[in-house]
Amino acid sequence: MTVTYSRTVANAGLGTFSQLLLRWRGSIYKLLYRELLIFTGLYCALSVTYRFLLNEEQRRLFEKLAIYCDQYANLIPVSFVLGFYVTLVVSRWWGQFESVPWPDRLAALVGGHVRGEDEGGRLTRRTLMRYANLSGVLIYRSVSTAVYKRFPTMEHLVQAGLMTAEELRQLEDLPSPHNKFWVPCTWFVNLALRARTEGRINNDVALTALLAELNTVRSQCMKLYSYDWISLPLVYTQVVTVAVYSFFLACLIGRQFLDPSQGYAGHNLDFYLPVFTLLQFFFYVGWLKVAEQLINPFGEDDDDFETNWLVDRNLQVSLLSVDEMYDSVPLVERDKYWN
Amino acid sequence: MTVTYSRTVANAGLGTFSQLLLRWRGSIYKLLYRELLIFTGLYCALSVTYRFLLNEEQRRLFEKLAIYCDQYANLIPVSFVLGFYVTLVVSRWWGQFESVPWPDRLAALVGGHVRGEDEGGRLTRRTLMRYANLSGVLIYRSVSTAVYKRFPTMEHLVQAGLMTAEELRQLEDLPSPHNKFWVPCTWFVNLALRARTEGRINNDVALTALLAELNTVRSQCMKLYSYDWISLPLVYTQVVTVAVYSFFLACLIGRQFLDPSQGYAGHNLDFYLPVFTLLQFFFYVGWLKVAEQLINPFGEDDDDFETNWLVDRNLQVSLLSVDEMYDSVPLVERDKYWN
Amino acid sequence: MTVTYSRTVANAGLGTFSQLLLRWRGSIYKLLYRELLIFTGLYCALSVTYRFLLNEEQRRLFEKLAIYCDQYANLIPVSFVLGFYVTLVVSRWWGQFESVPWPDRLAALVGGHVRGEDEGGRLTRRTLMRYANLSGVLIYRSVSTAVYKRFPTMEHLVQAGLMTAEELRQLEDLPSPHNKFWVPCTWFVNLALRARTEGRINNDVALTALLAELNTVRSQCMKLYSYDWISLPLVYTQVVTVAVYSFFLACLIGRQFLDPSQGYAGHNLDFYLPVFTLLQFFFYVGWLKVAEQLINPFGEDDDDFETNWLVDRNLQVSLLSVDEMYDSVPLVERDKYWN
Amino acid sequence: MTVTYSRTVANAGLGTFSQLLLRWRGSIYKLLYRELLIFTGLYCALSVTYRFLLNEEQRRLFEKLAIYCDQYANLIPVSFVLGFYVTLVVSRWWGQFESVPWPDRLAALVGGHVRGEDEGGRLTRRTLMRYANLSGVLIYRSVSTAVYKRFPTMEHLVQAGLMTAEELRQLEDLPSPHNKFWVPCTWFVNLALRARTEGRINNDVALTALLAELNTVRSQCMKLYSYDWISLPLVYTQVVTVAVYSFFLACLIGRQFLDPSQGYAGHNLDFYLPVFTLLQFFFYVGWLKVAEQLINPFGEDDDDFETNWLVDRNLQVSLLSVDEMYDSVPLVERDKYWN
Amino acid sequence: MTVTYSRTVANAGLGTFSQLLLRWRGSIYKLLYRELLIFTGLYCALSVTYRFLLNEEQRRLFEKLAIYCDQYANLIPVSFVLGFYVTLVVSRWWGQFESVPWPDRLAALVGGHVRGEDEGGRLTRRTLMRYANLSGVLIYRSVSTAVYKRFPTMEHLVQAGLMTAEELRQLEDLPSPHNKFWVPCTWFVNLALRARTEGRINNDVALTALLAELNTVRSQCMKLYSYDWISLPLVYTQVVTVAVYSFFLACLIGRQFLDPSQGYAGHNLDFYLPVFTLLQFFFYVGWLKVAEQLINPFGEDDDDFETNWLVDRNLQVSLLSVDEMYDSVPLVERDKYWN
Repeated sequence: MTVTYSRTVANAGLGTFSQLLLRWRGSIYKLLYRELLIFTGLYCALSVTYRFLLNEEQRRLFEKLAIYCDQYANLIPVSFVLGFYVTLVVSRWWGQFESVPWPDRLAALVGGHVRGEDEGGRLTRRTLMRYANLSGVLIYRSVSTAVYKRFPTMEHLVQAGLMTAEELRQLEDLPSPHNKFWVPCTWFVNLALRARTEGRINNDVALTALLAELNTVRSQCMKLYSYDWISLPLVYTQVVTVAVYSFFLACLIGRQFLDPSQGYAGHNLDFYLPVFTLLQFFFYVGWLKVAEQLINPFGEDDDDFETNWLVDRNLQVSLLSVDEMYDSVPLVERDKYWN
Repeated sequence: MTVTYSRTVANAGLGTFSQLLLRWRGSIYKLLYRELLIFTGLYCALSVTYRFLLNEEQRRLFEKLAIYCDQYANLIPVSFVLGFYVTLVVSRWWGQFESVPWPDRLAALVGGHVRGEDEGGRLTRRTLMRYANLSGVLIYRSVSTAVYKRFPTMEHLVQAGLMTAEELRQLEDLPSPHNKFWVPCTWFVNLALRARTEGRINNDVALTALLAELNTVRSQCMKLYSYDWISLPLVYTQVVTVAVYSFFLACLIGRQFLDPSQGYAGHNLDFYLPVFTLLQFFFYVGWLKVAEQLINPFGEDDDDFETNWLVDRNLQVSLLSVDEMYDSVPLVERDKYWN
Repeated sequence: MTVTYSRTVANAGLGTFSQLLLRWRGSIYKLLYRELLIFTGLYCALSVTYRFLLNEEQRRLFEKLAIYCDQYANLIPVSFVLGFYVTLVVSRWWGQFESVPWPDRLAALVGGHVRGEDEGGRLTRRTLMRYANLSGVLIYRSVSTAVYKRFPTMEHLVQAGLMTAEELRQLEDLPSPHNKFWVPCTWFVNLALRARTEGRINNDVALTALLAELNTVRSQCMKLYSYDWISLPLVYTQVVTVAVYSFFLACLIGRQFLDPSQGYAGHNLDFYLPVFTLLQFFFYVGWLKVAEQLINPFGEDDDDFETNWLVDRNLQVSLLSVDEMYDSVPLVERDKYWN
Repeated sequence: MTVTYSRTVANAGLGTFSQLLLRWRGSIYKLLYRELLIFTGLYCALSVTYRFLLNEEQRRLFEKLAIYCDQYANLIPVSFVLGFYVTLVVSRWWGQFESVPWPDRLAALVGGHVRGEDEGGRLTRRTLMRYANLSGVLIYRSVSTAVYKRFPTMEHLVQAGLMTAEELRQLEDLPSPHNKFWVPCTWFVNLALRARTEGRINNDVALTALLAELNTVRSQCMKLYSYDWISLPLVYTQVVTVAVYSFFLACLIGRQFLDPSQGYAGHNLDFYLPVFTLLQFFFYVGWLKVAEQLINPFGEDDDDFETNWLVDRNLQVSLLSVDEMYDSVPLVERDKYWN
Repeated sequence: MTVTYSRTVANAGLGTFSQLLLRWRGSIYKLLYRELLIFTGLYCALSVTYRFLLNEEQRRLFEKLAIYCDQYANLIPVSFVLGFYVTLVVSRWWGQFESVPWPDRLAALVGGHVRGEDEGGRLTRRTLMRYANLSGVLIYRSVSTAVYKRFPTMEHLVQAGLMTAEELRQLEDLPSPHNKFWVPCTWFVNLALRARTEGRINNDVALTALLAELNTVRSQCMKLYSYDWISLPLVYTQVVTVAVYSFFLACLIGRQFLDPSQGYAGHNLDFYLPVFTLLQFFFYVGWLKVAEQLINPFGEDDDDFETNWLVDRNLQVSLLSVDEMYDSVPLVERDKYWN
């Protein structure tokens, strides 16, 4: 359910980005409105307390407290730490996307090098590609909430046609406590070797190229696994969160409108709601939300990668490439520029 | 219609960059003048209201409001967030350019490894290259406004000589809802395999090298597709836009020239038009425009990639390489430094 | 004992990151509480001194000193230098993780290309993989505290089954003062060549692919070694540390609550404990802690890489791949989408 | 005429960088002195006007204006935008340098794989390398001012021995409006294929390796061409230039020394020349000059890449490698450590 | 003499980095103490002048000057420009380290593919590796002060056993003014081809792999050469140096303690020595020192790469790999987990 808006902003015109402000899906409003309500609620509560519940002396104290808070809130370099942190999160997010394994390249090689129109050949090609897809899905199950919900047990993979019952049995019989995404890759290798022996793959260079491509897929799976395993250090995330939250805690008090009649500097107007503080909230917490959304792009946020779509697309394209389209070339004829 | 100015600034002399300020095509003025007019208009409207329409009491209130706005406008760290955001957009922009597939490398291999001066050989080479180009164009159609306008239907591709009617039929018959840019790649593989069987490609190493190169083109197409599919998270773009826009909303009021006779600090001059605020507008909104222009470099902005030019150039160079220039070497003679 | 929290934050909801604030393992609290106690202790000591031990005149002097300290503390650009430094440390940290050698790709090739179900074949495959793993462990011993503790002597490697006594003897007999992690790689090459001669590896392309993959593992080991050898320049780390520490030394005095009755600007409230300074401490020293934790990710911090787990996992997966699973493919049958 | 100073600063001693301040070639002084003179001239003109030409009332107005300018000059975040922009320019600059094609790797393969000491062999090897160099030079002609001046017409390339008259004729006969740098690459491929047929290259693996290496050179040429074609978006450069220039326009007025007797805050000294503003000018405009110099490193600035030197060096080394040194190995004898 | 401290900071504990503050070798103190003494000396001289040598009127003038300097010193964005510049220098520094050629990978291939236990085989292998090492050393001589001191003439290379007298003669006879580091690479290629002809290398795939690996070493040498040739533009270094130096020149005057009795704001205490300015000096100049130390990591600073160690290590490991360990595999026996 990735939010794609590139086409909307293809041409830079009058306030191009402003049209994006009216979207709801994947928008900052959808992500932020609850936090904003809470903040506003607390602010109003404090405001009411200050205006109606405190006595004269308490109000003077509160005013001093507010000025103190306001003064120190500005010492917290929220924008700085958010800038560096979000940059880091974004680069990991894209790194994860680039690690998503696409079986297309492998399908091209399997479709080209594994020969034979007989059932044996078809079976080999389809099975090879199924193995490559299966490896990916096994990884997705361990990193993506959405895929895990779709395939809560390995049985579901069998039902979805991604693996056979026999394969599941063998996978589960393998005595290893570690993630077994690599097992279908090993089957791939073994089946490819068998195809070489049977002459379906007719030369060693092709076999080596196939294995190299398979290893690329395997490396990408492992990279996804690593990104999931090695999160950004918890401390960094906590530091940023503490900075943003404490800044707004300070603002809750420090940005109260104080009694203009007391003549505090910068407090000669009373708007009841601090528009600019709300904008700052919008802005800083929105920035933090960017990080919250991207830190694990395999969840079910509006802007997360559509892994289930990927699973379906990859399986279909793989099978089409190596089976339906096997050895099919449209009639080769002279093109328009032939002379 | 990319704006190339490298040569103008080849040598750093007296105010090298200043000559760039006088350009119109692709310039900040062209991108910005409407926004600037709107901002100035609103500013003047407010100014007139303050000066002539408000009564004494309302003016005092407006003055307080202006001072309040001015004070808080400076709390919004526009330059910070713009710096990080634009850096990100620029790196994606260049990443997209680097993903543009050039068929040159593939053409070199096809021209070298697919032998035969007879019609069969020529047909094979030309068709292989046409397939590689076709894959690219199918992707361009889905990411680039300009190419889509040029080829609004697949029929147009047939008319342009990029594919034959038969190929179009087969492409459309393929039962898959997903983008089919990879189909010509599969045809390429199948045709290359056939050429190997027929002996036009006379060894397996060459075949493997050809397929590897084809897969590189395919990966680049997929990368372009991915960049289009996975936009920068909407939230980030919204946060930046909100920051810039709210900053200038605050400036509309906060940077009004207040009655000097009231003696507000920093308000002892009345210029009617706030030159420096307009410069800031120029500067910040201009920076945002950099992002607006680069976020989708496949549109029709002055500075977007010229994909239609690419389509033509690539097809021509491909066909020249593998057909006209097939096996042609100028007379090999002793060079000047021969001894 | 890496702290994995990706799944907790898969979906961005109401204050997603706030749940992370309650963790202890790998948290900022665990890393920071001692420094915080020390800082608070010193602050209180100074506070008590100022309030009760100094005479009137000394207090006036202390007040001037405090104001002076406060004023200059803000001149130290702590957030700036921390931002750049931590970004650097984080990129090295991830660079190190990406250099961790995984033998999976190599195992796929060994399992595929080294043929023979007899004892000789099994021995060759297992030994090849053991060599690759051994190289990694030799590097880990020199860079990772945890692995070094597990294998304090080379004898322990023999006991753990990673090498044989004979291998240890030969390794130690080699007259070289430098790190010998590369020796098992050389054995690997020699054994692979022998397997080629014996016909277990039946073609040269496969052999070359194997050696290339082995060289990748070797390069990664060397990279880990390099990261350990070439630390971030000591000067940079010292500059950052001095900046942070001197900032808080200045705060110890400068952020004391001065007698409100003296009427110093900004000193009209007395909270006894400077909440915001503690938050700043939390924030800046927490940021520094991120660097302290990541600068050597092969230690035993909560968030360091689990090298011992890696050693076990890699050995097991290697041996499973090339031995138990050798040539095993589940029954190849028609998949669900067969038509 | 690149300015190399690495050796001067090999060791960090007392003020290592300070020795660099005394250089003229490629220095900031050489680049900046004209701008500095202009700025100083304008400043003095304004100063004289204020001091001697204005009447009392006008001077009061000017003073208000100056204070206003000074106040707003500081709102322009020059250092921020310059930091991000220059970082970008520097990374492109280095990217361009890394795209410069060196034929050394190709020469090693040509010298190794194209056999034969007879004239045919020599001719083939020399011609192959000449083609690779020619491709580079064709690109240089289109991106580098210096190389273009050296070879203003294609005839000059013939005279310089980089191509023969026959080759020039064929190149010009090719019906294509696009840059033809790739044509010599195609000749290379065709000649290499011919050498394979004639048995000068005696195996397909070698041929494939040769073509792969040639394609690397070709890709690098194309990268140089792309960097030249796709400049940094004009808008970004304009934004930065406007920011810097408008800052110093504001400074011209805002940093005037006002009559101390008027008692404006911060204006109780009159130095006639604003040393710190000049330093700021030096500093900010110098930073911008870094960008001006690096944005096109193929010009004739002191610090631009010496493309003409490259052309000569590459041709010489190529021919030496594949001809004079063909098959030459010094007598292989026991080295010092032989035992 | 790289300063390795990774192990000291393996675990983040109480003030982990604080232990690093007590080091001398490679420390900021060692690099900085002279500059600090000079700065302090000048400061004191000025201080004494102000306090004792100036008359009343001159002191008033000096005070105004000091306030003026202090005010403008803060306008120089030292931390900003240092942050960007040092980041750049650090990335080049690591880029240079990654370009250091390690012959290990090549040694694995030479040891594996060049067969024969007779003297001819041994000679070939040893000579091949010696050539690869020699190329590296020729580059080191031109980039590294330390290596140049060790081998001031080419004769020294002969004495050190890195080349033979005959090789030196041939190298010097080659008529080329350019750096000749590539000549041993060419010899390598020629010798490898001869070994192929003689059947010591028994297949073309192996030969091609060898040449590819050699080319990798050659590219890395060329990269080192390029880093040395193309320094960071002098202008950038000068801009940074000017910024830092002028900041501290301003501080020399601006941070003087002025007579408290004059009642200047912020000048009501007299400490004689400006602790915080010294800390700032420590901090900013220390940051600049990071750049000074890293800008050429091939010097003889405490923290520079130990090129001489590399030369020795690489030669020894190369020869061990291809000769002593040639074809040696420990007895292959069942491992502990055999079942």
